[in-house]
Amino acid sequence: MHFDTIWLNARLATLDPSREGLGIVEGGAVAARDGKIAYSGTQSGLPAGWDAARRIELDGRWVTPGLIDCHTHIIHGGNRAHEFELRLAGATYEEIARAGGGIVSTVKATRADDEDALVKSALHRLDHLLVEGVTTIEVKSGYGLDTDTEKRMLRAARRLGKERAVEIVTTFLGAHALPPEFTDKEKYIDLVCAMIPELASEGLADAVDAFCEGIAFSPEQTARVFDAARAAKLPVKLHADQLSNLHGAKLAADHGALSADHLEYTDEEGAAAMAKNGTVAVMLPVAAYTIREKQFPPIDHFRKHGTAMAVATDCNPGSSPATSLLMTMNMAATLFRMTVDEIIAGVTRNAAKALGRTDIGTLEAGKRCDLAIWEIERPAELVYRIGFNPLYQRVWNGK
Amino acid sequence: MHFDTIWLNARLATLDPSREGLGIVEGGAVAARDGKIAYSGTQSGLPAGWDAARRIELDGRWVTPGLIDCHTHIIHGGNRAHEFELRLAGATYEEIARAGGGIVSTVKATRADDEDALVKSALHRLDHLLVEGVTTIEVKSGYGLDTDTEKRMLRAARRLGKERAVEIVTTFLGAHALPPEFTDKEKYIDLVCAMIPELASEGLADAVDAFCEGIAFSPEQTARVFDAARAAKLPVKLHADQLSNLHGAKLAADHGALSADHLEYTDEEGAAAMAKNGTVAVMLPVAAYTIREKQFPPIDHFRKHGTAMAVATDCNPGSSPATSLLMTMNMAATLFRMTVDEIIAGVTRNAAKALGRTDIGTLEAGKRCDLAIWEIERPAELVYRIGFNPLYQRVWNGK
Repeated sequence: MHFDTIWLNARLATLDPSREGLGIVEGGAVAARDGKIAYSGTQSGLPAGWDAARRIELDGRWVTPGLIDCHTHIIHGGNRAHEFELRLAGATYEEIARAGGGIVSTVKATRADDEDALVKSALHRLDHLLVEGVTTIEVKSGYGLDTDTEKRMLRAARRLGKERAVEIVTTFLGAHALPPEFTDKEKYIDLVCAMIPELASEGLADAVDAFCEGIAFSPEQTARVFDAARAAKLPVKLHADQLSNLHGAKLAADHGALSADHLEYTDEEGAAAMAKNGTVAVMLPVAAYTIREKQFPPIDHFRKHGTAMAVATDCNPGSSPATSLLMTMNMAATLFRMTVDEIIAGVTRNAAKALGRTDIGTLEAGKRCDLAIWEIERPAELVYRIGFNPLYQRVWNGK
Repeated sequence: MHFDTIWLNARLATLDPSREGLGIVEGGAVAARDGKIAYSGTQSGLPAGWDAARRIELDGRWVTPGLIDCHTHIIHGGNRAHEFELRLAGATYEEIARAGGGIVSTVKATRADDEDALVKSALHRLDHLLVEGVTTIEVKSGYGLDTDTEKRMLRAARRLGKERAVEIVTTFLGAHALPPEFTDKEKYIDLVCAMIPELASEGLADAVDAFCEGIAFSPEQTARVFDAARAAKLPVKLHADQLSNLHGAKLAADHGALSADHLEYTDEEGAAAMAKNGTVAVMLPVAAYTIREKQFPPIDHFRKHGTAMAVATDCNPGSSPATSLLMTMNMAATLFRMTVDEIIAGVTRNAAKALGRTDIGTLEAGKRCDLAIWEIERPAELVYRIGFNPLYQRVWNGK
């Protein structure tokens, strides 16, 4: 068998779902051909007579699937550092709103940026993720809230995948907030529903998301968006139960959503419905940390019912100005008490599932050869450290 | 006037104590000669006829003093990732102790490492701090707990300053924990007190620290250590009131300590005594985060009494496996509600004070030319982001 590249003398966390825990293989090897994994397993099990154009000796280093950040708002104009500063200095919500803060300030800044500016500012953030071994990133729109700007955000997101060796998955989040020029949420949802077939036909969105919350959109409005997505043959996701329990998790599961995200206030019925319908629970611990939320997602219910859990940065300028998936993993442990195995599955196999992708997320033959190679002695080190990056090499699409 | 190097068109956060807040100078310039700051102020105020061997145009970028991490245990053997993993999986304290976890495991690993091994593992951690603009770092002993290993740790710490362009300040922390071969704390304190004059005469320690806590040493035992330090003409510091209020802050202040550190359970009397005696309150928010402490230091009391506050990583393998001072700064804001100005002063001017150093920590003529130059629009961005490093250039000793 001929390989383009083979990585030898490795310790593999394969995340193969047919194996226990991380699917660990000691004395392992991974080989790539045409960008795909052609072999993953013990070195002694390699087929007789194999050869490779390039051989890389890993001296016992660990290999995981390339990391997947399955929930980001990385494309946006401006930042909200000043608002952050004012809040620490004791400013009230009203004072910050009067000073032009809040999500509306990001909408204003995003509308003012052209596509090049949106790409340029996002690349600085993206590069921080890539050096930590991220090979796939989901990017949401949702700071345009008008057709032109939402499209511009999604085009900018697609361009990130041309500028860097990374897979970009886009999500249309028109139903993120009510734009300042609207007063009637139903009328704005009409506009969102009208955008969906247009974005689908232009291939700009891989999925449709919404924010179901008292301060955003109701379950009924969310269901309208989901119906429009189904008509356009796009899968759906949901920002659910972050600040209160509107039964968003169950709503998402009932609509066959790929994922429901946040979930701090989700109840057991929601967790069970998600497990039943294969909807992934995406944990966003940095947002919980930043807004100083005291209630954390019901991890025990997810475990009991077998709901798949993912972990993501939620990179956004307000509640999660985060560009480190490793730091996010630490918070998933320290704050949410997820285990090391759950967290590593949450940024690989289950993050792929949250994006509806079956071609990435594990080290199995036939998957795309996206690898993160680490200078560590055990996988727990990826979760345990704070502000330390042990990445040795990143491989995207076999390279 | 002749300069070796001048940085032009800069925005300065001088931290000059005679100015308000961060001591901001717009349209500023900083110049170095013989490793010291020869000019810091407005560009228009430069003396007529100046020249410089090297001119660096900063295009409006921000300059702060080089950052100072004034409390670390960066020299240590091994790591505690496995213990972290076991705890997340539900192991009890006893199970972890039986599996060889806890501080004793770090003592064992540190005693087993020779000086080269201690230096090598610490350099990986140190390099993560340096790329964030850190120019001075304090390093404690305290995982040896016998004369040979404590000395080896301090020699390894000094060597970090030869291997990298960074200032190392060492602290002897013999009174960190009772070593496994002792059962009598008084007898071990006898040994600690006997080590102090020896370390002082060999120039290995710049200060003496202790851990005053129910699980460590009593106020009386701490006072014995402080007396020995005074006899050896070494300044003192204290790990105080982290888990309970043993009035460690007041004890430290009464002994004229440079700093008291942690302080979660310090009362107003302690805060007032520190202010009166010039003892700096060193905030270690990552440790509070990692051990999930619910009580935070009395920032309001420190503000009311004018106690100087610093912020540090506490880099250690147990309660704070942190190598990012920027992330620590975010936690000082998000968890402890310090303001942006307090936090930036806490990693510059006040961190210098916590080390008893008057030659670093601000951008004033005559101080050592240690600079951090940032690609930011406002200083708040240094605190607001999570896992993002906007460092543009780091200057140590004028270079």
